[in-house]
Amino acid sequence: MKATIVTIGDEILIGQIVDTNSGFIAKSLDKIGVEISEMISISDNKQHILDTFAKLQNQVDIVMITGGLGPTKDDITKKTFCEYFNDKLVINDEVLAHVTQLIEGFYKRPITQLNKDQALVPSTATILKNANGTAPGMWMKKENTVFISLPGVPYEMKGIVEDEIIPKIVAEYQRPYIIHKTILTYGMGESMLAEKIEDWENNLPNFIKLAYLPSPGRVRLRLSARGTDKNLLEKSIEANVFSLTQIIGDIIVGFDDNETLEVVLGKLLAQHKKTIATAESCTGGKLAQLITSIPGSSKYFKGSIVSYSKEIKIKILGVSEETINKYSVVSEEVATEMATQIRKVMSVNYGIGITGNAGPTTDDTEEEVGVVFIALATPNGCVSEKFNFGQPREKVIDRAVNKSMEMLQAAILKNAF
Amino acid sequence: MKATIVTIGDEILIGQIVDTNSGFIAKSLDKIGVEISEMISISDNKQHILDTFAKLQNQVDIVMITGGLGPTKDDITKKTFCEYFNDKLVINDEVLAHVTQLIEGFYKRPITQLNKDQALVPSTATILKNANGTAPGMWMKKENTVFISLPGVPYEMKGIVEDEIIPKIVAEYQRPYIIHKTILTYGMGESMLAEKIEDWENNLPNFIKLAYLPSPGRVRLRLSARGTDKNLLEKSIEANVFSLTQIIGDIIVGFDDNETLEVVLGKLLAQHKKTIATAESCTGGKLAQLITSIPGSSKYFKGSIVSYSKEIKIKILGVSEETINKYSVVSEEVATEMATQIRKVMSVNYGIGITGNAGPTTDDTEEEVGVVFIALATPNGCVSEKFNFGQPREKVIDRAVNKSMEMLQAAILKNAF
Repeated sequence: MKATIVTIGDEILIGQIVDTNSGFIAKSLDKIGVEISEMISISDNKQHILDTFAKLQNQVDIVMITGGLGPTKDDITKKTFCEYFNDKLVINDEVLAHVTQLIEGFYKRPITQLNKDQALVPSTATILKNANGTAPGMWMKKENTVFISLPGVPYEMKGIVEDEIIPKIVAEYQRPYIIHKTILTYGMGESMLAEKIEDWENNLPNFIKLAYLPSPGRVRLRLSARGTDKNLLEKSIEANVFSLTQIIGDIIVGFDDNETLEVVLGKLLAQHKKTIATAESCTGGKLAQLITSIPGSSKYFKGSIVSYSKEIKIKILGVSEETINKYSVVSEEVATEMATQIRKVMSVNYGIGITGNAGPTTDDTEEEVGVVFIALATPNGCVSEKFNFGQPREKVIDRAVNKSMEMLQAAILKNAF
Repeated sequence: MKATIVTIGDEILIGQIVDTNSGFIAKSLDKIGVEISEMISISDNKQHILDTFAKLQNQVDIVMITGGLGPTKDDITKKTFCEYFNDKLVINDEVLAHVTQLIEGFYKRPITQLNKDQALVPSTATILKNANGTAPGMWMKKENTVFISLPGVPYEMKGIVEDEIIPKIVAEYQRPYIIHKTILTYGMGESMLAEKIEDWENNLPNFIKLAYLPSPGRVRLRLSARGTDKNLLEKSIEANVFSLTQIIGDIIVGFDDNETLEVVLGKLLAQHKKTIATAESCTGGKLAQLITSIPGSSKYFKGSIVSYSKEIKIKILGVSEETINKYSVVSEEVATEMATQIRKVMSVNYGIGITGNAGPTTDDTEEEVGVVFIALATPNGCVSEKFNFGQPREKVIDRAVNKSMEMLQAAILKNAF
């Protein structure tokens, strides 16, 4: 059971936008046992699209296509679909009613001809309802390959994948099982780790694949098992993870199955019934934003004070002016006061304080660009750490946010409350 | 002059990570007139890599490959390179000295055999120095196609592209000119806009391509001109942009690719010497985060209070409990108090207050999911508006953030202060 993902759009090929759709589709298909053989990004060019379709015909079971479904002249996927399937466009009444309702009923705008044209679909296509937009998804089969066309707008594409496509594939196809297990390790470099577990790696059964995913300071080991006997796969993964913990148990800090840190953290906080709040300077609210990107986060997240100026730190957060003057705004002492103050004023279990120089300039502080102090206030006191995340700005912010979530996770896991 | 970008790695194909390398490489090559014909992501599988190379051989001038250069068993790009070029691996002394210096000198760790093996390279490869890591880049030519292999770690890859590859391509290849111009429009939907500029679009010369890039509330129009006569391209782009402003000048708010709303707004605020602060509820700090993603934003952004609970709104932001009880937290009255209070407590010119139901549930409020109230407090009073941004959560947050920036921009432009 194989699929290829094709994204259509010149904006991807000139680097104007990053394609995040393919990753989402891959993750969704992987979960139900569909293997992604390739991802391809191509231009808004009819011949290029037709050639790509022809090349994939009967090579894979499913071709998932995103992009090129908008109402304007540069959107040519639908017409190209018709040509490939030797079909013609017809008005679909259900889609027309949905488009009309969305434009006139919801957006309260007069409907235009281009809006109405969104209801034109190939006559033999199975329509996949787009609850969040005007362009419907389309499912068309030719010989052994199903071609599925989706709009490129991420939330529209996601809705159709989750509500329409995954259930349809599950119902219509027999699929093998794919099980991944990711082991998080800290404090040992990739090559040293590889040498330490070489024998173990060589003894893995051939249906289990190992991958090293290094990032600064940590290496994730991913085991992937594939086959038809789910029980065997699970048992084998379990046994091999156990034997791995016998070798490197001291550097394993957790397991995660593709869950982001904010999701893992949210579950932990909800499970332990703990609350948090953040006091952010250089991260500018990004930590709060990531935490609140998770539905239901209001159960454990109370709020944040983003203090981008010295007065706000003093006046609203309650950091002492003396501390700032004595140690400067980018200092361990200020991070500590930010964390303890936010914990106090928001009445939460954990308070996080972050202050640093994201760059590109250091303004009036003494620390160099990339230096960030992170403090975590808990019921048992406050811990803090100094980091140098280098450059550029974006990387400093991202690493500070990640590191603060890691510190919080470790504190909760160690029952440090 | 055409290139294809190939990323190698199972972690991309199962959706564990999003490939951001291809976008960076595409942007870098596009700038020097190299056209990207395709981007392809494939698995860590020798035959898959060899087949992909063979398919691209003599079809494009350059194949840019990232990934699979690490020291561990799952990294097979280097060995596969040798097989494709019928070459063998030899120790490169310069690379070995660099690796030794990095591991022993900088990281202060004993060097391992796997570290040393990073200096093994195909004997006929031109080595591209990796200043930020141990795996060197490699440049190898076969017939009419150059294959360039790069590490997958983004900042290592970026360093090699900028310092080694771009200068080498500029020196060795004749390239056409590619000029893009992006026009930002606000407040008109994609289809209505397309109908309004239809005649203008039909009269564009054939060497200029138009693309519509819609996102909630705004549409970017991108003109791309390609050819050998730089002067002609520039003049033609300029003339067509001018004639476009004659038609839709009232909704054009800026030009150029990097001019996102937060950039435009930042310039406006700096230029008018005005300051802002935000009081966010359902957007969870995303507005603050976007504003502070711009270097130098501390000049006009003072801070934010993210109040994710009723107590915080009352206690820290100073919204009256009576107002909340009378109208509920998601109401025009609360948004208005949030905006006026944040303006007051942070002593800024403009205060933005946002409260709404991002979903998926409405919790204890009366408004449906998707409803957001945005208020803008100015020296001349407070304006507010009710929106229904629909679903899902991510879209509601993004649209609320965008809309609030638009309201602020309009207020500044109208000199409403």
